[in-house]
Amino acid sequence: MATRRGDTLIFSDPPVIASHAAVGGKKEGEGPLAAGFDELRADNSFGQSGWEAAEAELQLRAARLCLKKAQITEKEVSLVLAGDLQAQCTASNYAMRALGIPYAGLFGACSTMAEALGLGAALCSAGMADGLLAMSSSHFCAAERQFRTPLSYGAVRTPTAQWTATAAGACLLRPTGPGVGIRAVTFGRVQDYQIKDINNMGAAMAPAAAATLLHYLRDTHSEPQDFDAIYTGDLGHVGSQLFRELLAAEGLLLKNHVDCGCILYDAEAQSVKSGGSGAGCCAAVLCAHILPRLERGTQKRLLFLATGALMSQTTFLQKESIPAIAHLVELWAPKKEGTA
Amino acid sequence: MATRRGDTLIFSDPPVIASHAAVGGKKEGEGPLAAGFDELRADNSFGQSGWEAAEAELQLRAARLCLKKAQITEKEVSLVLAGDLQAQCTASNYAMRALGIPYAGLFGACSTMAEALGLGAALCSAGMADGLLAMSSSHFCAAERQFRTPLSYGAVRTPTAQWTATAAGACLLRPTGPGVGIRAVTFGRVQDYQIKDINNMGAAMAPAAAATLLHYLRDTHSEPQDFDAIYTGDLGHVGSQLFRELLAAEGLLLKNHVDCGCILYDAEAQSVKSGGSGAGCCAAVLCAHILPRLERGTQKRLLFLATGALMSQTTFLQKESIPAIAHLVELWAPKKEGTA
Repeated sequence: MATRRGDTLIFSDPPVIASHAAVGGKKEGEGPLAAGFDELRADNSFGQSGWEAAEAELQLRAARLCLKKAQITEKEVSLVLAGDLQAQCTASNYAMRALGIPYAGLFGACSTMAEALGLGAALCSAGMADGLLAMSSSHFCAAERQFRTPLSYGAVRTPTAQWTATAAGACLLRPTGPGVGIRAVTFGRVQDYQIKDINNMGAAMAPAAAATLLHYLRDTHSEPQDFDAIYTGDLGHVGSQLFRELLAAEGLLLKNHVDCGCILYDAEAQSVKSGGSGAGCCAAVLCAHILPRLERGTQKRLLFLATGALMSQTTFLQKESIPAIAHLVELWAPKKEGTA
Repeated sequence: MATRRGDTLIFSDPPVIASHAAVGGKKEGEGPLAAGFDELRADNSFGQSGWEAAEAELQLRAARLCLKKAQITEKEVSLVLAGDLQAQCTASNYAMRALGIPYAGLFGACSTMAEALGLGAALCSAGMADGLLAMSSSHFCAAERQFRTPLSYGAVRTPTAQWTATAAGACLLRPTGPGVGIRAVTFGRVQDYQIKDINNMGAAMAPAAAATLLHYLRDTHSEPQDFDAIYTGDLGHVGSQLFRELLAAEGLLLKNHVDCGCILYDAEAQSVKSGGSGAGCCAAVLCAHILPRLERGTQKRLLFLATGALMSQTTFLQKESIPAIAHLVELWAPKKEGTA
């Protein structure tokens, strides 16, 4: 069960992430976190005939690997919460066609993984789901033609632009048992600082990350230094700087902030400009890097704060500003006796 | 709390729909259900400069009317679950920018209203939300250019085509108190019968509606005649026929089936071909017609089974078939002493 304080739900018996898997493409396999991935493919088409179908395959593989690691079958999963960046979330929809499990689709853009973990933890903790899959994906090539221009146009990237990850992450949640605990969740409110540059998502999303973190800290009477790390996903280098400045203006000095978009790639060697992004970026960094650290006990308690930019190509062309949202989950290392 | 049986959650203390509102456009105001709407506008632009923004305004008005009828403010709402048909769900995102309440975005295409009610009921029943808004919208003009062709092309409509409603519905959920009870929810599994005709959504969605209904009936040991009505949304005339045939093949004769898409418009007089559709269609029919009937006691117990087609314009052009999903909620008339 849970206690509500402000915008935050605190679980008295934290549900757990019992298993997780990360799958990535070529560039992810050349990055600093490659060793943590469960599967990496040099061929970004994943054997499919289009980028959209490739992303569905990516998400499906992450889901199946996650279930395999937990040694359970699809039949033992009560519900899947999933979403992605494609119009009408088709990567998730087509992945779910193959999986055949009850499915509630989410849209939170790049915040989807935290949204899925938050809603999933609530349902698990209330005994309303036993095995529950939370997952999200993105694909560089599908996203570029969705939001910017098709790759073959060869458009030049600006220094503030982020690189959409070709990656997926999937987590199996359970009401109890061994695994990383989800201690709390804060669902965000939409923020809009009137950013209109579709090549500067970090600036659009930083205010949402700051707002949700401030809500969480106020609701739980905690301070940034209570955590081994505060992971955002994915503000990139430009957005991370703005995020820390916004918090500094509120009197908070963040010394333990890490952005998933800044660690998935080597920004300089891999020419990703401001860093990684996409609904699959923080989902994969969570599964390939953050959760393993908690499982090893390298970190004990941290925040995972995923941000999403909520515009579309249509609203961008209509000169609308970019609203953004951020959802937060608090994660705890497994108890010693229950460590997987 | 809830008991899980198969794909179905049954709430021992049903959360309630404490308040609801429906807003519609010109054609909805000329249809048979006009009298039940809370607001109807002859101008489908809703004072905005684009159709996408008009839909955001439509959803925002439904939300505000719903809160006004419940005599509460935004501050008293814990969470909003909302979604729509636009790419990246921008109608909901921009409506939520104005509302400023914690928000978890959903994508279930035209099944979104049942998905929101189902997840919302689960959260309310577990004490994790007090006031919770579940809402959805669609706009004819935004949907036509999103999924087919811009209106100004003057494309001819096929007999199987449905008319996307310019409408929104919003429900305020509470854990307890006066209002229509949400007794159970069944989250659907994706079905795909290899339909590829984007002008025949009813055929693509009918199998999903049948599959979810069969799961629900099996999980709860109930029969179709246990209900005053089984409302689907939105199969239209073509899809409804297929839905009843699919069930007949399973030995179920449905005599109490009503499709929201078949009652929102007068198909012949209003030239809507196979009927209404869109995420706002069944949401508005629920709020303008179904819930008032339950509140008056004309109906006591019914099923609301919303269906969604999960393709995009991109997957359609890639010649992918159309996967579909249906989510179901069981609704009960308010107890006599608690009738609003």
